[in-house]
Amino acid sequence: MDDFKVVLDEKEIPYQWYNVVRDLPFQLPPPINPGTKKPLTKDDLRPIFPLSLIEQEVSQDSWIAIPNEIRDIYRMWRPTPLRRARRLEKLLKTKSRIYYKDESVSPTGSHKANTAIVQAYYNKKEGIKRLVTETGAGQWGSALSFACNIFSLSCRVYMVKVSYHQKPFRKSLMHIWGAEVIPSPSEKTECGRKILSLDPHCQGSLGIAISEAVEEAAKDKLANYSLGSVLNHVLLHQTVIGLETRKQLKKAGEKPDYLVACVGGGSNFGGFVLPFIKEHLKNRKIKIIAVEPSACPSLTRGLYRYDFGDTAMLTPLVKMFTLGHKFIPPGIHAGGLRYHGCSPLISALAENGIIESISCRQLEVFKAAVTFAQAEGIIPAPETAHAVKVAIDLARQNKEKCIVFNFSGHGFLDLSSYDKFLSGELKNYAYPLNEIKRSLKDLPKL
Amino acid sequence: MDDFKVVLDEKEIPYQWYNVVRDLPFQLPPPINPGTKKPLTKDDLRPIFPLSLIEQEVSQDSWIAIPNEIRDIYRMWRPTPLRRARRLEKLLKTKSRIYYKDESVSPTGSHKANTAIVQAYYNKKEGIKRLVTETGAGQWGSALSFACNIFSLSCRVYMVKVSYHQKPFRKSLMHIWGAEVIPSPSEKTECGRKILSLDPHCQGSLGIAISEAVEEAAKDKLANYSLGSVLNHVLLHQTVIGLETRKQLKKAGEKPDYLVACVGGGSNFGGFVLPFIKEHLKNRKIKIIAVEPSACPSLTRGLYRYDFGDTAMLTPLVKMFTLGHKFIPPGIHAGGLRYHGCSPLISALAENGIIESISCRQLEVFKAAVTFAQAEGIIPAPETAHAVKVAIDLARQNKEKCIVFNFSGHGFLDLSSYDKFLSGELKNYAYPLNEIKRSLKDLPKL
Repeated sequence: MDDFKVVLDEKEIPYQWYNVVRDLPFQLPPPINPGTKKPLTKDDLRPIFPLSLIEQEVSQDSWIAIPNEIRDIYRMWRPTPLRRARRLEKLLKTKSRIYYKDESVSPTGSHKANTAIVQAYYNKKEGIKRLVTETGAGQWGSALSFACNIFSLSCRVYMVKVSYHQKPFRKSLMHIWGAEVIPSPSEKTECGRKILSLDPHCQGSLGIAISEAVEEAAKDKLANYSLGSVLNHVLLHQTVIGLETRKQLKKAGEKPDYLVACVGGGSNFGGFVLPFIKEHLKNRKIKIIAVEPSACPSLTRGLYRYDFGDTAMLTPLVKMFTLGHKFIPPGIHAGGLRYHGCSPLISALAENGIIESISCRQLEVFKAAVTFAQAEGIIPAPETAHAVKVAIDLARQNKEKCIVFNFSGHGFLDLSSYDKFLSGELKNYAYPLNEIKRSLKDLPKL
Repeated sequence: MDDFKVVLDEKEIPYQWYNVVRDLPFQLPPPINPGTKKPLTKDDLRPIFPLSLIEQEVSQDSWIAIPNEIRDIYRMWRPTPLRRARRLEKLLKTKSRIYYKDESVSPTGSHKANTAIVQAYYNKKEGIKRLVTETGAGQWGSALSFACNIFSLSCRVYMVKVSYHQKPFRKSLMHIWGAEVIPSPSEKTECGRKILSLDPHCQGSLGIAISEAVEEAAKDKLANYSLGSVLNHVLLHQTVIGLETRKQLKKAGEKPDYLVACVGGGSNFGGFVLPFIKEHLKNRKIKIIAVEPSACPSLTRGLYRYDFGDTAMLTPLVKMFTLGHKFIPPGIHAGGLRYHGCSPLISALAENGIIESISCRQLEVFKAAVTFAQAEGIIPAPETAHAVKVAIDLARQNKEKCIVFNFSGHGFLDLSSYDKFLSGELKNYAYPLNEIKRSLKDLPKL
């Protein structure tokens, strides 16, 4: 009988990350310095990023070597298995073949570790002592804490307040790995204090937490900022996911008809699909689908404009699909998807019709997650469940298709939201269209 | 460079379970029917167990075939990796080589799934509609819920009250897989009511929860009882762990000097070490160490006597190391190790000097767990952390030894206890010697 898992051995961990930029049929619009209104220079980024990551951010090389020290750490959990969801297929009585790349086997339980260790590594090499970051659901915060612990860097995490309370145990993980966790908005930063003065009960958002982390990192010479998504170099590091998946599908004798992943900032989606783009551009044989929450629908309801990456307007201006940097999404449990924008790279792929996007509502997402957990045994993170939902819908069409999705993280630390769902307490959020309309009025003029 | 994991492919999942009984240099003392005071008959067990499991319980065959339906479910997560703890070795600056068999990769996060699916399978085959069981930390309860969900059996779990509150999220898992969870002692059973009338604040124990589950199962023709440890057939199913480990060590060119596992009822320890016993009896080259909590030290401080497996004296009498069936252990966080006795099979190995045992205190165990989590990235369950503690102590002796321990489960659902440890709230318990002395006075006379 056929296997349930397609496994690779450690020698098959990629030796290089793949940089898609060179293979794109268009130029990426450059980030803009909001002060000069001119394209961003490397020097603009020096106060918060190490040079090696800035080089990667703007690199035009198609392949960038993975340092051996990093491959050795990858070997703690990589290559990750590509699983055939045989029991789910049976449950759905589908002719489709469903595969999922299981990134939940990383020590921190999600794909975020793939870039966290890389960012900690380069910062350490360039003499940085401390990293400051934000986190939504806590997947990124725990991953960076893990990475800082490995490289003996100290770490401070601004955690979106709604998640800080919804997901206390990702906080515990960060503490085990020695990081300091602060609910955002906080009194520790100017922008935090400003937001709290306007709304003392503000539940926070990724945009606000980014502002606090960037503000703090910019002020401290020995500290840098670390971002878990959105930027080119983050997506670059995550391409180990898609590169392994390609090998594994080949091994299984499969060609994907659908690639599905959830999208917040875009690193999980990008890391999974970018290695397939070059071939896709030739024959357009794959449907590549980004899944986002209806409560924060940047790709499906946002505008493709230059905007700030954060709420306090401290970041460069990047061209992306955005709901406006002032948009604060409802407190859905998929905290990792509560971002007002989306990676410029992914946004450009969407704008150019190379990928598709779709949005789902909270209750249908959790329903799909429970179906998956009952069939496959593994509990998806609420973010991951967005991909699960669409994969199941595609399979229900019952065509002989190969559906592959990225299982970005497990939900062992999100069980309180499953409790709420099972007890009927969880609610759907309507499209926050008025809030979006309002915040889109505040897009920066260029 | 050498690998971090020794992996097997799915064809290498064992085709048979190993039954050690035949290879032992002694006869196992038979279980006794407390009523007749005569050796237990198969019929005595029929009210609560299916015939096929009873046959396995008393089997003298060395090898018992694993049904294909079971192997197919094993393939969802087996073979599990044998990991080389290279980063921990480095941290400890040890000459020893440390390996751990990672059973935490099962859908339920522990080794318990290995027998849960087997017990559900045979009960289903024999027309049973419902399984009733107990659980301590919730590892077993979630595993059986998972298994019942796979075989469409309904499932009721009596969960030790202290864990029910300490570990709410194992409960969530059980709910996701469709089981009903009841804090024990409860008002649902005679023995539960009796205990609550004596002590309304009773925090419960495995012994009490077993009583409630057995009482309920015995009363319902279509329901059976399911036990997660202690009995021969449970240890039998768990031997897939040790059988795979042997193959993997061979692949790595290693011969173990130490085998270490935590012990509560004994299924995790037994499943890991039993496949090594036959060779061990020949050359006595391996030190086999069972680790238990000082708060519940059956092997190190108990007596080798006939005793009841439960508090309400509903079970047969089995000869085992026991603290007395009335002993209620302090509320340590390693809920899965809070059992007054120990598997008769493991007890006999201890009595005959074939294995050694050692006990550890809660704080040193958590300290070791955090060290491990920082080095290897994986968070051990508090039960598992007992094995981690001893493996680290052995490695600190800095001899060129091969130390192999069983990583029975992850601690993603035990993070509240890590919080308490890190914040200094967690306390040590002294040996409860007076309570033990008292409860040992109540051993049944034969």
